Amino acid sequence: MRATLIYGTRDIRLEEVPDPAIHFPTDAVVKVVASCVCGSDLWPYRGVRPTAEPHRIGHEFVGVVEEVGSEVRTVSPGDFVIAPFTISDGTCRICRHGITTSCERVEWWGSTDRHGQPIDGGQGEYVRVPLADGTLVATPGQPEPALVPSLLTLSDVMGTGHHAAVSAGVTAGSNVVVVGDGAVGLCAVLASRRLGAERIIAMSRHAKRQEVARYFGATDIVAERGDEGVAAVKELLGGIGADAVLECVGTKESMDQALNSTRPGGFVGYVGVPAGGPELPIQKMFRSNVNVAGGVAPVRTYLPELLGDVLKGAIDPGRVFDLELPLDQVAEAYAAMDERRTIKPLLRP
Amino acid sequence: MRATLIYGTRDIRLEEVPDPAIHFPTDAVVKVVASCVCGSDLWPYRGVRPTAEPHRIGHEFVGVVEEVGSEVRTVSPGDFVIAPFTISDGTCRICRHGITTSCERVEWWGSTDRHGQPIDGGQGEYVRVPLADGTLVATPGQPEPALVPSLLTLSDVMGTGHHAAVSAGVTAGSNVVVVGDGAVGLCAVLASRRLGAERIIAMSRHAKRQEVARYFGATDIVAERGDEGVAAVKELLGGIGADAVLECVGTKESMDQALNSTRPGGFVGYVGVPAGGPELPIQKMFRSNVNVAGGVAPVRTYLPELLGDVLKGAIDPGRVFDLELPLDQVAEAYAAMDERRTIKPLLRP
Repeated sequence: MRATLIYGTRDIRLEEVPDPAIHFPTDAVVKVVASCVCGSDLWPYRGVRPTAEPHRIGHEFVGVVEEVGSEVRTVSPGDFVIAPFTISDGTCRICRHGITTSCERVEWWGSTDRHGQPIDGGQGEYVRVPLADGTLVATPGQPEPALVPSLLTLSDVMGTGHHAAVSAGVTAGSNVVVVGDGAVGLCAVLASRRLGAERIIAMSRHAKRQEVARYFGATDIVAERGDEGVAAVKELLGGIGADAVLECVGTKESMDQALNSTRPGGFVGYVGVPAGGPELPIQKMFRSNVNVAGGVAPVRTYLPELLGDVLKGAIDPGRVFDLELPLDQVAEAYAAMDERRTIKPLLRP
Repeated sequence: MRATLIYGTRDIRLEEVPDPAIHFPTDAVVKVVASCVCGSDLWPYRGVRPTAEPHRIGHEFVGVVEEVGSEVRTVSPGDFVIAPFTISDGTCRICRHGITTSCERVEWWGSTDRHGQPIDGGQGEYVRVPLADGTLVATPGQPEPALVPSLLTLSDVMGTGHHAAVSAGVTAGSNVVVVGDGAVGLCAVLASRRLGAERIIAMSRHAKRQEVARYFGATDIVAERGDEGVAAVKELLGGIGADAVLECVGTKESMDQALNSTRPGGFVGYVGVPAGGPELPIQKMFRSNVNVAGGVAPVRTYLPELLGDVLKGAIDPGRVFDLELPLDQVAEAYAAMDERRTIKPLLRP
């Protein structure tokens, strides 16, 4: 089969690799229907995180089960399934608390597992899925093809935006600021609307992203950044910061923007992978009671709930995909995302 | 009148100072019945925070109203009142969110206000109380003398321990670790019990404090620190960290202890004044979804609720006072606290 590997900075290649097969009785093999490129894939792509040796990449995909191991109980060949961006057993002490990303048997797409077995990446034609029962979620029946992009967002960006909102305590009547207008930030807008936020301020200086933000429920757009951005937010909110600020980037600047835009006693919900970023300023947080919650999103936990809303048409996060390419143009998908020519590209094998 | 001043490192003096009087129509003058020394008073006492020039000190007191300004409505001469450790108006946009410590007109005992008026400290015979309506809480009638110590804890330590517990989301059935066996840590144990925690692990290596912790509701004591302390906590909790860890010290070591003792997805509720401590390790927090909430405790907000429980005998946080001295021995009170010969000393003018 063909699958994507990263070789180094801005070096993405589609190559022939061995077809996956069942290695453990808890595995499934999935034929990929759609995958995509994530903002966090850009960290190694840009060399912010060095690539020591070539490896598979991609951690978001949906597809159809081809084959299952003898111990797999919850999915069967022919099922349409969504794979969250981490592999988890769903039964350990930490999964039972909902933090599947810290599962005691967690594994990561594109890496090597604790048995020394390579784990496929999502940007390929087929994927061996370890711990299939804990990891995969099947849709009831075959979904309409038009729903595939929205289902694919449940692999990561929609669940991650939702985690930012949940971590920040967004609820009916909240006022919310979203820092970051990538796919996760836009999904955080949608998640906030879904949770009943009254005021949703999207920070964006990019017309196409502003448009999606408005479509997803942003009530206001703030294009300014830094102190001017904070001032603009406070002016919209009657002089103080927001109840909840969703940090969906992961840089020092975005976290500062978030901390400074939060009212005393409010929450920053953060999901942007801290890209070697600085530590959090505890003195400032202490003085103002600005709280910081979040982390790597346990999207598997949220998947059933969000899936229900996608299937009934209540949310359509698939709108974040504004570019669709065949898998053999995966390098172009990375370049387009790196250069911000696309919000998020969808790949079809 | 006599009042306490700090002159510098380990230099505490009781001196004759001018009697306070009403300066603004929103002021009250209170005759102090009891005050005390706080763990945070030890930072300047120890020179960790330098004292630029001599100033009044003490921010916890209860007393009886002597006189009120013409605009004071909620307290009257003769009322027994509790003063929280910050001055707040109770009406601004931030007070309405409950964060009275970030009040738009916040002032601090022992400092100089925005009008250039000196503000008395609590460790004296009388105190001018600015913004008396927002700041003071009167008891219904005169309290029994035996209740005075518990009422005095509502000025700071009980409300602060409660804030740690509330910030960390302690609720019925939670398992909780309390880092710090000073008065705040002990009150955090009591607050956790009051909120229904099932398991409360107090980290203490000091027999007298362990005894108070057990009396307040600690189910387990862990004397180890560092990695051994973390291992002991996890062993008690079936292999993973606690839902809620209450950080009641403010040092790098105590925050590390707290972060490492929290399960993925759990909360550190922190109220220890960060004593020039380091920043928070965001990468580690991100990976594990360990959340950090808290700050300088808005005890004024909690005062009515906790007062009710003290008056009906449901909690007796006054047990943290294990030394009572006349005000003219205030220097000895500081020394005893500094040397950990007392958990917390109560001062009677």
